[in-house]
Amino acid sequence: MRHFILASTSTLFGEAYLAYLQPAMRALYAGVEEIVFVPFARPGGISHDDYTSRAAEAFGEMGIRVRGLHTFDDPAAAIKNARGFFTGGGNTFLLVKQLHEQGLMPVLRDAVNNGAPYMGCSAGSNIGGVTMQNTNDMPIVYPPSFETMGLIPFNLNPHYLDPQPGSQHMGETRETRIREYHTQNTTPVLGLREGSWIYAQGDTLTLKGTLSARIFEAGKDPYELPAGSSLIHLK
Amino acid sequence: MRHFILASTSTLFGEAYLAYLQPAMRALYAGVEEIVFVPFARPGGISHDDYTSRAAEAFGEMGIRVRGLHTFDDPAAAIKNARGFFTGGGNTFLLVKQLHEQGLMPVLRDAVNNGAPYMGCSAGSNIGGVTMQNTNDMPIVYPPSFETMGLIPFNLNPHYLDPQPGSQHMGETRETRIREYHTQNTTPVLGLREGSWIYAQGDTLTLKGTLSARIFEAGKDPYELPAGSSLIHLK
Repeated sequence: MRHFILASTSTLFGEAYLAYLQPAMRALYAGVEEIVFVPFARPGGISHDDYTSRAAEAFGEMGIRVRGLHTFDDPAAAIKNARGFFTGGGNTFLLVKQLHEQGLMPVLRDAVNNGAPYMGCSAGSNIGGVTMQNTNDMPIVYPPSFETMGLIPFNLNPHYLDPQPGSQHMGETRETRIREYHTQNTTPVLGLREGSWIYAQGDTLTLKGTLSARIFEAGKDPYELPAGSSLIHLK
Repeated sequence: MRHFILASTSTLFGEAYLAYLQPAMRALYAGVEEIVFVPFARPGGISHDDYTSRAAEAFGEMGIRVRGLHTFDDPAAAIKNARGFFTGGGNTFLLVKQLHEQGLMPVLRDAVNNGAPYMGCSAGSNIGGVTMQNTNDMPIVYPPSFETMGLIPFNLNPHYLDPQPGSQHMGETRETRIREYHTQNTTPVLGLREGSWIYAQGDTLTLKGTLSARIFEAGKDPYELPAGSSLIHLK
């Protein structure tokens, strides 16, 4: 049974790392004693070891051990044998480049589709979509492809932001950027606000948290979908 | 003699398209009767024709005719024969993909290095840098390379924004994104605020406008460079 969380952000303002997600994580990782952490997105350039330590601390509170994927001699085998996964946020280009160059993207996808519980935050959620093409990140490295795991049949825009009333900044709003995407592509995009996450359990796919999500489909006006909505028809 | 403008934005809040740049453009295009417009960045998905019309209107006020690069049967020859260029803003990934796929990036670079006046705004300025890797844009298409013209020996971050005091949004600030770039690359980055532009004339390279720019060099703390500063030492 597929079982995963794709969250907009790891951390809410003023809260501890992963704090708001802990109830959902306890359900996701029930019975799991150790997970593999994918540290490749390296927020702020943090090292793989330091990032893994940060994750280990948060998971330790739930009695779950964490091993960094970078520590295995055979990372593909490590993924196949893992009882669960967490991919942290950071730079999506860096994360996707590492996964593709090491041939791990399809291995991770298959493991999750075969039932290993997975959680991603921000960049780690972007790779749950069809492609990483709705990331907010800067292209600091050149990945061999923008394709990602496709755990869901649409793309995510994490940290979704509404246009700021009264702003005098002339850069594009998030909505403009996603609409530009749909001049070139047809995959739907879900704008996932901070505090929201997508929860998949078996055949269900649900928008969790207290906020609505903004849905962008090619050729349609964007619209809001309330928290608690099923997402199984979005494709 | 090399002669070009790389501007942060085409338009200031509440002003007409290119209005604040017109004095600088009169100097740049002195004696030029027709320019070639590169419409490939397509802001908001506008068509090549409509985007060219928008540029033609602004240039018409200065008595300069505009032809869209997309209208030529042989765009490489059109670039070689052109008396001047303007590349409009929009999506940098789309612009760079088109230029690379048509083999036009080095042709345009050579024309500018041989003395044809060039102006870029936003995405059109990003391609003046060494690579497009400090764009703010969404990766809506996959370009064959992130390399750009290298008219200047550093990269630009147009529409540069300072961190917002009191923001509760947990997405990365512009500064964090550029610092992440420098965990993977050594090319300096100039954060170009709206209303600022870089002006090259012969061997000079100057920060124009009234605002300072924020300079990011690998391994150094970022710092401010005042308007009017020479940029010839930044490499």
